[in-house]
Amino acid sequence: MAVNPPALSALEPVVGIRLGTGKANIRKPDRRDLVVIECAPGTHSAAVFTRNRFCAAPVIVAREHRTQGAPRALIINTGNANAGTGDAGIADARACCAALATALGCDAQQVWPFSTGVIGERLPVERIIAGIPACKSALSENGWNDAAYGIMTTDTVPKGTSRRATIDGVPLTITGIAKGAGMIRPDMATMLAFIATDARVAPQVLEQALHRAVDASFNRITVDGDTSTNDACVLLASGTGASIEAGKESERIFAQALTEVCSVLAQAIVRDGEGATKFITVEVDGGASEADCLEVAYTIAHSPLIKTAFFASDPNWGRILAAIGRAPAAQLDVGRVSIHLDDVCVVRAGGLAPDYTEARGAAVMRQAEIAIRVNLGLGAASARVWTTDLSHDYVRINAEYRS
Amino acid sequence: MAVNPPALSALEPVVGIRLGTGKANIRKPDRRDLVVIECAPGTHSAAVFTRNRFCAAPVIVAREHRTQGAPRALIINTGNANAGTGDAGIADARACCAALATALGCDAQQVWPFSTGVIGERLPVERIIAGIPACKSALSENGWNDAAYGIMTTDTVPKGTSRRATIDGVPLTITGIAKGAGMIRPDMATMLAFIATDARVAPQVLEQALHRAVDASFNRITVDGDTSTNDACVLLASGTGASIEAGKESERIFAQALTEVCSVLAQAIVRDGEGATKFITVEVDGGASEADCLEVAYTIAHSPLIKTAFFASDPNWGRILAAIGRAPAAQLDVGRVSIHLDDVCVVRAGGLAPDYTEARGAAVMRQAEIAIRVNLGLGAASARVWTTDLSHDYVRINAEYRS
Repeated sequence: MAVNPPALSALEPVVGIRLGTGKANIRKPDRRDLVVIECAPGTHSAAVFTRNRFCAAPVIVAREHRTQGAPRALIINTGNANAGTGDAGIADARACCAALATALGCDAQQVWPFSTGVIGERLPVERIIAGIPACKSALSENGWNDAAYGIMTTDTVPKGTSRRATIDGVPLTITGIAKGAGMIRPDMATMLAFIATDARVAPQVLEQALHRAVDASFNRITVDGDTSTNDACVLLASGTGASIEAGKESERIFAQALTEVCSVLAQAIVRDGEGATKFITVEVDGGASEADCLEVAYTIAHSPLIKTAFFASDPNWGRILAAIGRAPAAQLDVGRVSIHLDDVCVVRAGGLAPDYTEARGAAVMRQAEIAIRVNLGLGAASARVWTTDLSHDYVRINAEYRS
Repeated sequence: MAVNPPALSALEPVVGIRLGTGKANIRKPDRRDLVVIECAPGTHSAAVFTRNRFCAAPVIVAREHRTQGAPRALIINTGNANAGTGDAGIADARACCAALATALGCDAQQVWPFSTGVIGERLPVERIIAGIPACKSALSENGWNDAAYGIMTTDTVPKGTSRRATIDGVPLTITGIAKGAGMIRPDMATMLAFIATDARVAPQVLEQALHRAVDASFNRITVDGDTSTNDACVLLASGTGASIEAGKESERIFAQALTEVCSVLAQAIVRDGEGATKFITVEVDGGASEADCLEVAYTIAHSPLIKTAFFASDPNWGRILAAIGRAPAAQLDVGRVSIHLDDVCVVRAGGLAPDYTEARGAAVMRQAEIAIRVNLGLGAASARVWTTDLSHDYVRINAEYRS
């Protein structure tokens, strides 16, 4: 069902980062649903969390533990988001951290918890704790592929990728895994991503690199605009590989590789979006500001009318034009707007392009991957987001989810 | 298909306002698709138009003519929105105005044009002009019901209502008609409303009353947030009935009756929303400001996840809670939020209400009309919007629309 999902190849190990995956029977029997990630001493970290003000208990606890420094371990469960569970949920998250800390011989505050699954049910803490020994036994630097499966919920495919580079002859590795079938399922706690590198990076450089990479990748995808209560992305840097220095070429190489990893993972989430039959890139150029370009891009990407038209392979340019017209961009001159579907010019100077034919538009629309390219004709700013169409299956999946 | 649509009863005539409806074969044969509304000399007017920056040619021309004063006539066609048609579309709209002006013996600038239908096709001006004599012959103060049918496009039911009141013993009548199947179809030029009253009202009082009424009615409905390129609402006041004075009781009575007319029409549009199986009222109380309440209400009303859950009659409170958490309200304290489905308390103090059961929630969700009542626990402000669920039929209708 996913749209051209990339195959999961063997993910590159990262020295100092070990992963162990087990089955804890959290929601369904005989399913990999618990993952432990252990970091070597001295590992640095960076993280971003959901901006949803109803954030889940594990997000609250992870943020709190983060103030104490980098983690020695992460504990990730699927099947239950531990969200909307109040003080009891926070105590449950702490109990999981404490149990893993005891097993690994570290402090409970050095463990960060992550949960994904249904909202509003108590976490089955005893089953999770009972599952920790198997995860600990499985800990391995080659555990990435198993972990990619272990963090899936309704994802139809596992998502992971690696990038390697060389800095002054010293190799650099970045490997990441993610889960999510669109940013569309707050009760499934949409998106988690765990990325590790062997780079030696100062914490503040790492933090800035992660924020920039996330902003260009995970913050540029949408299926229906619903932001999860559990979203999180963590970057671990074990420091055994190449050195990264702020403002130097090494930082540029690192940032580029990290952004590539994040972009592959983010696009994999959209390709696996609920009910998706099309992978749509919305590119907006020629804006007076990047913010304006983003407003236009998101207005297009969130329009149910445009998304259903793409599902129907209907080059309904009137819907795109109307979405641009209602976008809350500060500067917009409708007479300067042009729209392309891939390379086919549909709208020029705010009106139907004279050489456009429905046959040319329909040919593009039959593709599984399509770019909507808007030029605002005002300046040099640009922005890009990735999204899906809106299909019968989207309604079916989300209407039937709890039944 | 519409959710409990009000039956169209005999609409009250308004002295001085005559309507004539005809068949001009604009898009489909043998269909009422052309309406003329003629106003007695001395009629005042007020109007609001779409905020979409890609507005259609008739909106541009009507706005321009409006600067010359009140209209003597309106000409309304369905089947073609005359949008995205550039300078040629503007010339077409002017040609229709000129033809009607000649037929009625007034100035072309005293005619306001309105169009609704597909985007991007030239208006069939000759067929419209050929249809004017029949509309003129049909002009009657009792023409409201025919006109309610004449402005329909994909509406499944006609929409109209009347209100009567008495001010100092003098009767007051307000009658209105509207078209639209949700604010969801920019290429069907979603919403038009034409309202008339016999009240004697100064233009600035009329304008203010219309803006307030529209803000509490048409600006509080959404099906999917897509704003049309052709939306318009016109209020005509022939001045033969009761006198309305600013700041007096008469103004209050008039404003209330007008708001009732607009609210009935606005709710009728939502009830006829594409694919709607539920009529949902979102009430947000206890906010620090009305703007905050509106942000929360619209975030709920636009969430595809909430809308699909309602289609499935699933009391999925986690989705409502997550939508509130991501709403861009300036002040929000998640620990103070409560949520009711009708009278069933689901969330209290930001968590699941202790006495809530799925059976109680499911009983409410099986209803065709449901209120989502959110209390933010912060202040005295409130806001209310009306919307629909998101069904398989919504996708089918919008995917198949042009095929």
